[in-house]
Amino acid sequence: MITLASIRAARKRIAGAVHRTPTFCSASLGAPLGLTLEFKAELFQKTGSFKVRGVLNKLRQLPREDIDRGFITLSAGNHGAALAWAAAGVGSRATVVMPAHAVTSKVEAVKAYGGEPVLTTGPLLEEARRIQTARNLTMVHPFDDLDIIAGHGTAGLEILEDSPDVDVVIVPIGGGGLISGIAAAIKLKKPNVQVIGVEPVTADVMTRSLASGKPERMDQPRSVADGLAAPFAGEHTLAHVQKFVDRVVLVDDEAILKALRAIFERAKLAAEPAGAAALAALMSGAIVLPKGTRVVCVVSGGNLSPATLKQLF
Amino acid sequence: MITLASIRAARKRIAGAVHRTPTFCSASLGAPLGLTLEFKAELFQKTGSFKVRGVLNKLRQLPREDIDRGFITLSAGNHGAALAWAAAGVGSRATVVMPAHAVTSKVEAVKAYGGEPVLTTGPLLEEARRIQTARNLTMVHPFDDLDIIAGHGTAGLEILEDSPDVDVVIVPIGGGGLISGIAAAIKLKKPNVQVIGVEPVTADVMTRSLASGKPERMDQPRSVADGLAAPFAGEHTLAHVQKFVDRVVLVDDEAILKALRAIFERAKLAAEPAGAAALAALMSGAIVLPKGTRVVCVVSGGNLSPATLKQLF
Repeated sequence: MITLASIRAARKRIAGAVHRTPTFCSASLGAPLGLTLEFKAELFQKTGSFKVRGVLNKLRQLPREDIDRGFITLSAGNHGAALAWAAAGVGSRATVVMPAHAVTSKVEAVKAYGGEPVLTTGPLLEEARRIQTARNLTMVHPFDDLDIIAGHGTAGLEILEDSPDVDVVIVPIGGGGLISGIAAAIKLKKPNVQVIGVEPVTADVMTRSLASGKPERMDQPRSVADGLAAPFAGEHTLAHVQKFVDRVVLVDDEAILKALRAIFERAKLAAEPAGAAALAALMSGAIVLPKGTRVVCVVSGGNLSPATLKQLF
Repeated sequence: MITLASIRAARKRIAGAVHRTPTFCSASLGAPLGLTLEFKAELFQKTGSFKVRGVLNKLRQLPREDIDRGFITLSAGNHGAALAWAAAGVGSRATVVMPAHAVTSKVEAVKAYGGEPVLTTGPLLEEARRIQTARNLTMVHPFDDLDIIAGHGTAGLEILEDSPDVDVVIVPIGGGGLISGIAAAIKLKKPNVQVIGVEPVTADVMTRSLASGKPERMDQPRSVADGLAAPFAGEHTLAHVQKFVDRVVLVDDEAILKALRAIFERAKLAAEPAGAAALAALMSGAIVLPKGTRVVCVVSGGNLSPATLKQLF
């Protein structure tokens, strides 16, 4: 498990290279819910999502020979873009195995940062392992890695600094890396703050894993929140969610799109669907909180496909 | 003319009731232009645009009997929404004369804040004056008022605080209230900073006024940047632009939409077209600056119509 010390060390390691993202209060969205509502704006992070936090914490601890071999990973897009960007920063390169149905703009982003996208209709991890072996590359897992998780935990420290009176933090779940880091940071500093996870009802691998007690897999999960459609949970992420997360709730695509529209129109944030999942859980009633509760919703990214944007309005 | 003292007094008067908006650096948009590029994010201001700065500075200096009579104004939408919001805050109400082709969501916003929109196909100012007289209302001009201009100037003070090394500030122009305030604040504090205005080529009333030396009128100007299509310049705003603004350039709708798309995709800001005009001037070559210039573009608002959003992608 990660510790407060490992998150603080991550923060020092990545400081200056990633953004200290702001938190926005939205009175117009909070008032109808009876809540004080804030958004942790990770869409303004480098490469447009929180992913660079973990990736940079990982890369900055690797020996030079691992860096020089080049990297391989699997990703719906945001982790791949973050790895491609960070790899370019250390003079290396990333190969990114992505689902064939990945958002086109995310495939383009991987390329734009100098990475090599490999699209597949098969299981992502198996394809990534195959290429890793064939080309002798260094694997940087998208979420099931303690250095990645500790890096993502730095967002949790910032939430507590910007919103010291927060009661509840709501975090979207794909493979569980972001919530593992944030929940650890928050529970280890302020155990009374609730941390709630949100998954798409059609990509509920963490909910299934919590039920069975072991990391479950799904065959090609799909959601309008492409970034949350992870095909499996991790051993590390499941352990962190079991230990640090109060509960995980489900939202459907319709609720996610409705919340995304609200984030555009009221909060003026050009978020991606995954970034609207936390608000969707509040607006749909999947999470009901007492009046006056102070809530931070993590807006995890802003890499929206034009097609989804057209669907919105 | 407004003074640094009147802008500072405005700042004290409205502090706490409006947001201190953030400034964002965008490396990915600045690099291809060879610039250090920052956005002053007034889209995150209360009611979704800078307009509340001036309106609140005005209302907080009015005698109670003027407030109690109720307000009248003319607006493409953002000033009307700001006035409706501020009026509700002091227990009064605003009537807002708007063009018949106004963005529907802006008409709805005026209503949502408790205002009464009045749509007209005729000249806005004449219709507003007619209703003012008939109902004995208090006029709050959308831009040609020294208290409004001083209130908008508070954004200029914030720009200098957040970007003390700025070389050039680019501001969109409708009737000229925003640029009058910002340019005064900047030139009175740091005369070496350039202030450049941007107008739509199809709504260039300030450019015409600068050429003729008196406030000009246009018959129903139109632009995708609805907030910049003011039908006339003001006496006060022309005087401030003459004194404090280095130059005014023109951009067409295509350039505005291209810049708006870039602001969505790269800066993750859900801006409205008016808010993209400053970047449009840089991307289109209407403004060419030496490599390394430090530029702040003012993103004036975020009240985007769904129709425009659909046009974007």
